Amino acid sequence: MPTAVKSVLPVVLLGCGGVGRYLLRHIVSCRPLHANQGVAIRVVGVADSSSLLVADDVNSSGLDDALLTHLCAAKSAGSPLSSLLGQGNYQLFRNPEARSKVIDAATMLGRTTGLVLVDCSATYDTVNLMKDAVGHGCCIVLANKKPLTGAYEDFQKLVSNFRQIRFESTVGAGLPVIASVTRIVASGDPISRIVGSLSGTLGYVMSELEDGKRFSEVVKTAKSLGFTEPDPRDDLGGMDVARKVESLYPSELGPDAVSTEDFLESGLEQLDRSMEERVKAASSRGNVLRYVCEIGSKRCQVGLKELPKDSVLGRLRGSDNVVEIYSRCYKSSPLVIQGAGAGNDTTAAGVLADIMDLQDLFQKPA
Amino acid sequence: MPTAVKSVLPVVLLGCGGVGRYLLRHIVSCRPLHANQGVAIRVVGVADSSSLLVADDVNSSGLDDALLTHLCAAKSAGSPLSSLLGQGNYQLFRNPEARSKVIDAATMLGRTTGLVLVDCSATYDTVNLMKDAVGHGCCIVLANKKPLTGAYEDFQKLVSNFRQIRFESTVGAGLPVIASVTRIVASGDPISRIVGSLSGTLGYVMSELEDGKRFSEVVKTAKSLGFTEPDPRDDLGGMDVARKVESLYPSELGPDAVSTEDFLESGLEQLDRSMEERVKAASSRGNVLRYVCEIGSKRCQVGLKELPKDSVLGRLRGSDNVVEIYSRCYKSSPLVIQGAGAGNDTTAAGVLADIMDLQDLFQKPA
Repeated sequence: MPTAVKSVLPVVLLGCGGVGRYLLRHIVSCRPLHANQGVAIRVVGVADSSSLLVADDVNSSGLDDALLTHLCAAKSAGSPLSSLLGQGNYQLFRNPEARSKVIDAATMLGRTTGLVLVDCSATYDTVNLMKDAVGHGCCIVLANKKPLTGAYEDFQKLVSNFRQIRFESTVGAGLPVIASVTRIVASGDPISRIVGSLSGTLGYVMSELEDGKRFSEVVKTAKSLGFTEPDPRDDLGGMDVARKVESLYPSELGPDAVSTEDFLESGLEQLDRSMEERVKAASSRGNVLRYVCEIGSKRCQVGLKELPKDSVLGRLRGSDNVVEIYSRCYKSSPLVIQGAGAGNDTTAAGVLADIMDLQDLFQKPA
Repeated sequence: MPTAVKSVLPVVLLGCGGVGRYLLRHIVSCRPLHANQGVAIRVVGVADSSSLLVADDVNSSGLDDALLTHLCAAKSAGSPLSSLLGQGNYQLFRNPEARSKVIDAATMLGRTTGLVLVDCSATYDTVNLMKDAVGHGCCIVLANKKPLTGAYEDFQKLVSNFRQIRFESTVGAGLPVIASVTRIVASGDPISRIVGSLSGTLGYVMSELEDGKRFSEVVKTAKSLGFTEPDPRDDLGGMDVARKVESLYPSELGPDAVSTEDFLESGLEQLDRSMEERVKAASSRGNVLRYVCEIGSKRCQVGLKELPKDSVLGRLRGSDNVVEIYSRCYKSSPLVIQGAGAGNDTTAAGVLADIMDLQDLFQKPA
């Protein structure tokens, strides 16, 4: 006997590139699983950077699975949403009208059936839309870390109703870091320190350097494996991890001075010697270098750190992420969470878990 | 400006020994923190194995913090609940009346304000009470694993409304294992294998053996450190981890044949030689022994396993727990969760996090 649906989660997805596309596929393939759990996800609208595809009647219907599957195939082939034409119970709006249609849906659903805005884009442009949606009582799920790491007022507004926002996939792909920190905080166990290696790219680079490879060679390999942004300086500059950071390249090789091509062709090699010396110096002391983020009670630091070879962070290989959390309960030996910290599939799975975690807010009256 | 209380969580606590006592202390000390989050925990009743202390008016009041603090002190000094006499807006009931008073509260509150039954006892005796409470719409939070590992029908009834039960502290104290598994399952990422070292006691014993200490000596030290049950065979038999297990002692030294005292005084030493040989044989192959629980798609095994020294499980020291989860997203390199897997403080913190996690089910109408 199938379980009766107890929670319906209406969703609008912003951004249907890599992660967003995987999310739609997961939603479609998980329908039987979610039905067994008494939950149904209703995809009311999907937006890319220029258009919005929205169900005719956002109050009661969603984009059907055949359309979502077709949409994923189109985006995968590099076509914009606006290329999707055909019959169906949906409409296409272009910017700036698209934006106001999302607000219409938020106004209509936010305080009635509820609505989740899911941000799988990689831009700061979604922040005002989401702030408005929060004002209308909507829930927010983010894979996109930019809206949370810009202006502090934006962050405050987005998290103003903390039970209605989830952002697990902004840290370490889907690794359960935020969920664990939230649990620890809720239990009154004061966190004193968090130490982590949260850049899969820099984790890969550092563990390859240990094997004696050249910095320039390792960065180029990382790029060819799809581990880096198109301009690898986006990773090497550390901005992906936090603002207060040590960059792995000097300002003379920065984006204002040198193009990506020139950086890759000749800039990178200028860094080989000094990097090799740092790795060797650390090794002579039985240590390795790791690109580490550390949050204490008074400061936050991000940069290269020399660590014992056999420490949790020192043993890290490849592109895995690791986080150590120290608190009263995890004092001498920390809570350690480790695993794949990148990948569209994993990131999208984390987003879906976040959406599902909101279901108790969407319960139908019995 | 203080946040308005959005969720009130009425709680009845079963078992106020070690973990339960810590839980009450955490609840009292976290009041300001929870108020900031818009949540209030109302302790309606507290039971030990013979009595129940219950608020006069379970509909609107709870046991006050002074009484809860006094109760913790009394239990800590070894006094039963029934020794608590004095003025206050509460009543004391002894078994079997105590049980029917809990059911009265469950009937009254389960489907109105909601009620959480929290089991911090270490007995199977609570299971019928909790099954009845589930029938009345109550939520369940368990630190006690026995109700979930007895009869399968009991398990089924307890988890029949899966959003209304939490049991994080039944595995690895408060380590976020169940929460992570639940997230992975909800996201449709199929788990293929879980491997873990989930007995702090046996973890400690195995890592001490590596340092060349005698088995009998290590077990006795573990007992004196409070790492084992009163009869250490409860740990050595592996029943704490699962039913399909390899015991570390032969049936000739089992509880039916030999008393705890005799086992400790002379039985244990009979095992030293064979254990030493196993440790040495493993070491000669660069391996170590670990007491491992492994759940695959077709079978579940618990027992001593030889593992490489530098594997995640092989590197484990002391009484830490570790779990590796393999799935589609965590395929070549698993999701690893590691940390303190024992201790009343940590276990109680996990229970409190579970209670807080239920708050969305208890929202006051706006």
